[in-house]
Amino acid sequence: MEKTRLGGHYLEKYDEELESVRNRVLSMGGLVEEQISNAILALGSGDAKLAEEVMANDMKVNGFEVAIDEQCSQILARHQPAATDLRFLLAVIKTITDLERIGDQAERVARMAIHLAEKDRPKNQYADVVALGERVLKMVHEALDAFARMDVGAAVAVARSDAAVDNDYEAIMRQSITFMMEDPRTISRAMDVIWAIRALERIGDHSRNMCEYVVYLVKGKDVRHISIDQMEEAALGKRAE
Amino acid sequence: MEKTRLGGHYLEKYDEELESVRNRVLSMGGLVEEQISNAILALGSGDAKLAEEVMANDMKVNGFEVAIDEQCSQILARHQPAATDLRFLLAVIKTITDLERIGDQAERVARMAIHLAEKDRPKNQYADVVALGERVLKMVHEALDAFARMDVGAAVAVARSDAAVDNDYEAIMRQSITFMMEDPRTISRAMDVIWAIRALERIGDHSRNMCEYVVYLVKGKDVRHISIDQMEEAALGKRAE
Repeated sequence: MEKTRLGGHYLEKYDEELESVRNRVLSMGGLVEEQISNAILALGSGDAKLAEEVMANDMKVNGFEVAIDEQCSQILARHQPAATDLRFLLAVIKTITDLERIGDQAERVARMAIHLAEKDRPKNQYADVVALGERVLKMVHEALDAFARMDVGAAVAVARSDAAVDNDYEAIMRQSITFMMEDPRTISRAMDVIWAIRALERIGDHSRNMCEYVVYLVKGKDVRHISIDQMEEAALGKRAE
Repeated sequence: MEKTRLGGHYLEKYDEELESVRNRVLSMGGLVEEQISNAILALGSGDAKLAEEVMANDMKVNGFEVAIDEQCSQILARHQPAATDLRFLLAVIKTITDLERIGDQAERVARMAIHLAEKDRPKNQYADVVALGERVLKMVHEALDAFARMDVGAAVAVARSDAAVDNDYEAIMRQSITFMMEDPRTISRAMDVIWAIRALERIGDHSRNMCEYVVYLVKGKDVRHISIDQMEEAALGKRAE
């Protein structure tokens, strides 16, 4: 990381500590991506064993959250950072909360994959659910990239893509309810699908949160609870088309 | 707040700022409690107008989150607190994230109350959902009390009560699915109930999170991601029966 990026000071040890935090957040992010990827693979292929691995690995995600939180509070106590460094640490503290909750959602998808592996499979092998999963996985990946590169333009683009995720989610939801009404014997399976897509939709929301912290970190502006157009204006200083 | 409680320093202005943060968190908590209370009242009585008020008021909850976050980062930047004061601010930053998400869940319950107000009502007037709502409202209230009094014993007791909420939630869930299977015409109504109880169950989880921050604040121990018995031991230094 360039020194100017985190405040322009030259205390080598301190820089190293901030760099270490940043690397750990990205490692945690990589693990969370792997968890989502395996959960949707397990669901799509009916692989209960892989799903069980995802569930077991969630404690590693939790471990990252605890360790990074501890590291951030130690840096705050020892070095009393200000300006960009302070914003960086506060953004990290929030980012890892969302990453941990994304991990919980991946675990939920894995649990549903185990339920579904025991049931008759539809002809499409849950292709629509897998497609939604891939979409949110891409959001998480790009949100982490925006964080790593402190790229507010990318952050706004990822946040904007959450609307498409919500649309896909609504479409699968409506279809699942239609199936349940047409054939009540499919209710149990449809409910498992509904919980899985709900978890995936929440991952999209958490990715958007992470993008908001990137804007806060780089621009010092809190862009939560505003529309995507307002977020773009605050982040990039231009009105959306 | 006693000065010793927040670090034993005597900088009057600084103390006032910390006290102001604490009061705002409790005001935010009071508003969130009111939101939950009105959402379950609206659901139980079929009062769509009250539910709409809850939905409109969620922006006030969001406003508290943004304002308190800003206040905390200003105090961190200006006063560079250490030890208990630093832990207090970090606990606040996490607490308000959970409070804001509890507000979102209350909004979801209100949205379902609006849907349900348009439909035939069951004989019991959703008494089981309302009872679950009252249980989680009590959890939120007691978690905020534990925070206000920095009472780790109370925090552990609230966290422990989350298991009963989960049991109630599972019971209503199973019953809703049974109703759907018996009479597919009730699917739409049952799904609204399921989303409402899901939101209430999540409020229980967020209340437990807030209790974990109370233990962190008072004891300096991170008790997330461990069992309730381990939490009790860390907080109170005794093994549970």
